[in-house]
Amino acid sequence: MSSSWGNLIHIQIFGESHGGGIGVVLDGLPAGYPIDMDMVLLQMKRRAPGQDLTSTARKESDSPEVLSGMLDGRTTGAPLAALIRNKDTRSGDYKNLMKLPRPSHADYTGHVRYSGFNDVRGGGHFSGRLTAPLVFAGAVCRQILLCHGIHIGSHIRAIAGKEDTPLDPVTVDAVQLDELSQQFFALVDPKAEDAMRLEVEKARLDCDSVGGIIECAAVGLPAGIGSPMFDGMENRIASLVMGIPAVRGIEFGTGFAAASMRGSEHNDAFVPGDGQVRTLSNHHGGVIGGITSGMPLLFRTAFKPTASIAKPQQTIDLTSGKQATLVIKGRHDPCIVPRALPVVEGAAAIAILDAMMELGKIPPYEGGRNHDA
Amino acid sequence: MSSSWGNLIHIQIFGESHGGGIGVVLDGLPAGYPIDMDMVLLQMKRRAPGQDLTSTARKESDSPEVLSGMLDGRTTGAPLAALIRNKDTRSGDYKNLMKLPRPSHADYTGHVRYSGFNDVRGGGHFSGRLTAPLVFAGAVCRQILLCHGIHIGSHIRAIAGKEDTPLDPVTVDAVQLDELSQQFFALVDPKAEDAMRLEVEKARLDCDSVGGIIECAAVGLPAGIGSPMFDGMENRIASLVMGIPAVRGIEFGTGFAAASMRGSEHNDAFVPGDGQVRTLSNHHGGVIGGITSGMPLLFRTAFKPTASIAKPQQTIDLTSGKQATLVIKGRHDPCIVPRALPVVEGAAAIAILDAMMELGKIPPYEGGRNHDA
Amino acid sequence: MSSSWGNLIHIQIFGESHGGGIGVVLDGLPAGYPIDMDMVLLQMKRRAPGQDLTSTARKESDSPEVLSGMLDGRTTGAPLAALIRNKDTRSGDYKNLMKLPRPSHADYTGHVRYSGFNDVRGGGHFSGRLTAPLVFAGAVCRQILLCHGIHIGSHIRAIAGKEDTPLDPVTVDAVQLDELSQQFFALVDPKAEDAMRLEVEKARLDCDSVGGIIECAAVGLPAGIGSPMFDGMENRIASLVMGIPAVRGIEFGTGFAAASMRGSEHNDAFVPGDGQVRTLSNHHGGVIGGITSGMPLLFRTAFKPTASIAKPQQTIDLTSGKQATLVIKGRHDPCIVPRALPVVEGAAAIAILDAMMELGKIPPYEGGRNHDA
Amino acid sequence: MSSSWGNLIHIQIFGESHGGGIGVVLDGLPAGYPIDMDMVLLQMKRRAPGQDLTSTARKESDSPEVLSGMLDGRTTGAPLAALIRNKDTRSGDYKNLMKLPRPSHADYTGHVRYSGFNDVRGGGHFSGRLTAPLVFAGAVCRQILLCHGIHIGSHIRAIAGKEDTPLDPVTVDAVQLDELSQQFFALVDPKAEDAMRLEVEKARLDCDSVGGIIECAAVGLPAGIGSPMFDGMENRIASLVMGIPAVRGIEFGTGFAAASMRGSEHNDAFVPGDGQVRTLSNHHGGVIGGITSGMPLLFRTAFKPTASIAKPQQTIDLTSGKQATLVIKGRHDPCIVPRALPVVEGAAAIAILDAMMELGKIPPYEGGRNHDA
Repeated sequence: MSSSWGNLIHIQIFGESHGGGIGVVLDGLPAGYPIDMDMVLLQMKRRAPGQDLTSTARKESDSPEVLSGMLDGRTTGAPLAALIRNKDTRSGDYKNLMKLPRPSHADYTGHVRYSGFNDVRGGGHFSGRLTAPLVFAGAVCRQILLCHGIHIGSHIRAIAGKEDTPLDPVTVDAVQLDELSQQFFALVDPKAEDAMRLEVEKARLDCDSVGGIIECAAVGLPAGIGSPMFDGMENRIASLVMGIPAVRGIEFGTGFAAASMRGSEHNDAFVPGDGQVRTLSNHHGGVIGGITSGMPLLFRTAFKPTASIAKPQQTIDLTSGKQATLVIKGRHDPCIVPRALPVVEGAAAIAILDAMMELGKIPPYEGGRNHDA
Repeated sequence: MSSSWGNLIHIQIFGESHGGGIGVVLDGLPAGYPIDMDMVLLQMKRRAPGQDLTSTARKESDSPEVLSGMLDGRTTGAPLAALIRNKDTRSGDYKNLMKLPRPSHADYTGHVRYSGFNDVRGGGHFSGRLTAPLVFAGAVCRQILLCHGIHIGSHIRAIAGKEDTPLDPVTVDAVQLDELSQQFFALVDPKAEDAMRLEVEKARLDCDSVGGIIECAAVGLPAGIGSPMFDGMENRIASLVMGIPAVRGIEFGTGFAAASMRGSEHNDAFVPGDGQVRTLSNHHGGVIGGITSGMPLLFRTAFKPTASIAKPQQTIDLTSGKQATLVIKGRHDPCIVPRALPVVEGAAAIAILDAMMELGKIPPYEGGRNHDA
Repeated sequence: MSSSWGNLIHIQIFGESHGGGIGVVLDGLPAGYPIDMDMVLLQMKRRAPGQDLTSTARKESDSPEVLSGMLDGRTTGAPLAALIRNKDTRSGDYKNLMKLPRPSHADYTGHVRYSGFNDVRGGGHFSGRLTAPLVFAGAVCRQILLCHGIHIGSHIRAIAGKEDTPLDPVTVDAVQLDELSQQFFALVDPKAEDAMRLEVEKARLDCDSVGGIIECAAVGLPAGIGSPMFDGMENRIASLVMGIPAVRGIEFGTGFAAASMRGSEHNDAFVPGDGQVRTLSNHHGGVIGGITSGMPLLFRTAFKPTASIAKPQQTIDLTSGKQATLVIKGRHDPCIVPRALPVVEGAAAIAILDAMMELGKIPPYEGGRNHDA
Repeated sequence: MSSSWGNLIHIQIFGESHGGGIGVVLDGLPAGYPIDMDMVLLQMKRRAPGQDLTSTARKESDSPEVLSGMLDGRTTGAPLAALIRNKDTRSGDYKNLMKLPRPSHADYTGHVRYSGFNDVRGGGHFSGRLTAPLVFAGAVCRQILLCHGIHIGSHIRAIAGKEDTPLDPVTVDAVQLDELSQQFFALVDPKAEDAMRLEVEKARLDCDSVGGIIECAAVGLPAGIGSPMFDGMENRIASLVMGIPAVRGIEFGTGFAAASMRGSEHNDAFVPGDGQVRTLSNHHGGVIGGITSGMPLLFRTAFKPTASIAKPQQTIDLTSGKQATLVIKGRHDPCIVPRALPVVEGAAAIAILDAMMELGKIPPYEGGRNHDA
């Protein structure tokens, strides 16, 4: 398999960048939940290209057609399929890629994996475009979570080393996350924007690219969600987030920085809260032993700089086996981090909904509208 | 589920720290592969407690009994089950834990998850002791991989901020990894040991603990292994490694540092090699788009400081809901990083074998010993 | 989940009878295999309604649009998605079904399962129409199997008690199965057709329906495919075939009749064949202990009479809880057995391909067209 | 994989007939449920060999040791592992089996599947002995179901063509099923016993064996359990039951006989019941469209005659490829049907619990014993 994920909620993504269309099937959704398509489209738009100079000039309206699983604005419980047509495709730009694989792009590994038969046009199934259906799926799942008081949001923690103020892992709340989750260039401190954009623009003018870090949080999760060992919240989230192109790492709570700390610093003291146990600090990022503590769930994910850059690069000619120079002509993002915000949030939403459903925490909408006793 | 993992190779771990025993079932192993039990025991011993002052004084011989799936030293293809008895258990030490959950330990989250019915003695199913069966499983899988020229090893990249020389992601080879994978306190540069041990010892004397980072590599992997999106090598490895207690983050190749780099720095130029394509640098850590490139696979994983420390800590009394002070009397590791080396290597081995088998790359041993044509 | 199946080949079906469309995603297909769309359409046509008096008058061209996973007539290895639009929908016919569930139809159980939110128009996701994507998926898989010498076919073993000559479990071959698998009303003995059609026509004129039995076989399967216990060929095939609406039972080889036999009658003696072991008889239906023997694989599956009949029926009014009489006005099949032939064959193809891939028996097409050594 | 099953409840069976032991791990059980070991042992005893002349003379006490997942007689929520030691093993009896595969036994297919490396002693992993852990797992699951008012039982519907009175699919109730589920030679009409035993005894004296049919029912299941297509109750039960050695077919409700009926006969009219919808007849066997209707769930499963018979049989010598005569010396059952009753019931219990949990219908035991609000 490959583009298939989940236990209770099952996500099947399909499509290739320049094929007939891309899309997703969500199987196992609870029935009766209202899905506001405007909220879905807002998330799709956050990811869509062509919005400013940080992203590719490719224009895609990315309007999903819901083929099944919804009726009168509500989930039916049957698999929800959505299709997004590809429109602005210029395959000619990519015709030499089969011969000359782009460095650090899946051209080469995909070529070997699929014995040379994969669709290389526009990156094929490896294209960042395939994150659009993931955003769609996430936007559906997060609306179901919202009905249960769970809010998810993220911000650009850093681009090219220019940092935003971190989320406060103890005080981050629904209001802050809801606000962040509607912005394109979401930041805790808006003053961080100029320095970040400057780095992206410098890279763009240099025919180069930059990477960055996204920090994502979820609040409203009850304690006790997730399972030990391989079905913990971290495993689930990591196994989805690692599927987003360009992600190179993920850390929960204090993450890698915890490796330099002492236990007495890192341990989070339990304290009585309003009807629930809380912790004074939140180095654990809301998850201990794979299971939620009721504190905000928090993770960061690292994005490498976009592999497709306009600068001439050294590669190999797969037909001759000889050294070659590659000049990429397609349209590419100097920085994909802003567009990745709704992708990361969506992945978190899918993982959380799956874990909630596994424990029977998502009942039929408002108890259902059965006519019979 | 929880302690169950895999597609082709299926790992089922069971056990609680102070119960009748812990163990693992490996289903789906290829038949006929010779398993050298001494090599398995060597890995078990690397993880076993009580070896020096960095670890708990609990003594467990950890000798696994193979119950099924092996005959005459070879895998039979049927599920391979191994049982490790618990011996040196002193449950009395833990009797107040149900009331007073240890900060940053799964006592509390496990209590909520299992509605107060979980076995809390010694951490129950959340105990670090449950990594013993994972090491066993990994030790079996890595021997099968060795038959196909794949070598895995790791070193302590850092403890409490004291660093070892990193593995060279381009030149790391089978000889270096084989050597590392047999050591208890595995280091690239042995001179780093004293500084690390000093930090651990200081923490121990302070009734405290420290964390660290493990760097793991695999060489000999052919290009083209793994699948895009959710079944990539990173997803598989992360979904296993995140199941190791105390792990807080994972990064592949250059990882989080890539977020501050430019594409022209981070991209790895393709060059002709000896009968295979190689890259000049290896920021991609051997995996692009979820699929191996044939270069060394490399990842790092962050361990938080051990949660169980002897210092008095603030917690909550679950029976009264009031604030309380906890003094932990059990035996605990001031640093679990050295013991975690074979766990991380084992997790990598399982993930890699699973991915190899998915693509039919692990044939019957030496073509099988069928008697019929 | 629900409409999701598979280990190596993953099938995700979606759609509702009167929604935007129905379809399927096949994930995990091997790359490079040529797929002849005419062969796919032939199978779709065998299942399509409106061909004669045995089936509903609803007209659906059922022409699938391939959205992804194919390029230049070959599989790319990425998920293959196909969409079939719904056209001839007359939802008005079904508007009273939410109130008055059809006896022995999923109207009632679906209503409870989905808390009243399911799409009931035309049977929604429970419609027999959902077998169209299954046929598509099967038609793709069987072409891949054909490249490896595996042929699948079936015939109408019985309709309303009128029987066809059984397939000979020992001598059935590729020629016979290929011929059967292209016919609409496939029979071993064409003389059985009239009696069967007479029963169907009598039932139709009586506003009633009839059931039947389909017998399916596969030849060319190597010995040693499948796994013991829960991943045997029988388990895999049964778990798919039981998903076909109206199926009420499945039996392998001699099946239920074996229950009345003695071991000495039922056991199949092994004999030397042309380079492979064979059995003199084939009561085992080509599978022993879940694993293929190399003899023809053979199973039968029972279809109940179509639940939707025009006769007035007793049911319950879900709004009042009171007794009511239902008169169904939609267009329905007096017998779905002929249309189910390609569905059963398709299910068998999917299960067999999945099992073959699990053992690495489906290499890249002709070794791949990699340019690099 | 092979011996691994489940979505929410995960069952992993291991062991070989003459190895160190056999057992099972159940992962995903709800926490806090009391498990009465005497009830488990009763089911184990029903399956155990050596009870009368219908079964093998091999004596195995089959007393399971619970290694984990239970504390103070309750499930902890962690994986529940049970080990059954092999005692009365006489491997010498089987030493010529590798050379001379038993007709209709998995000796040959297992030999090919595992390239000659499988453990053939006593049938290895293919032995009927492997149903002991399945009975254990089922006995645990059925006790959890009992807490929710679900009762499962079965009877010998036929042996060697001698029939018992069928269960009444409408009136079968908890009292009848509880009674049946405690008997060794469970029958609806005890008068059927003599004729059945006579057939078994005749076969035994003829060095032969006989098959039979088991009919199993479950009552107390709420309506709305299960999912359409591939995760229906029939698919789940079939995929487990087909893993029981010697099973050749399964049918639900009226099953194969439905194929000869008309819709007007087979359709079950809905009628108002005591606070729930019922059907007048129950041809549908409690499941429509994969989902329970609230009526008794009912299925039958066919067992072939035991393959291992003492009569000389024709087989092939795998070393020479030549014809040979096999005389089996081991101890075998002339009829395994009576011993299979708790196996079939157990499989049904596992499948039903899994489906109930998928819909969140199994809450923590009595709301849990959490100390905190």
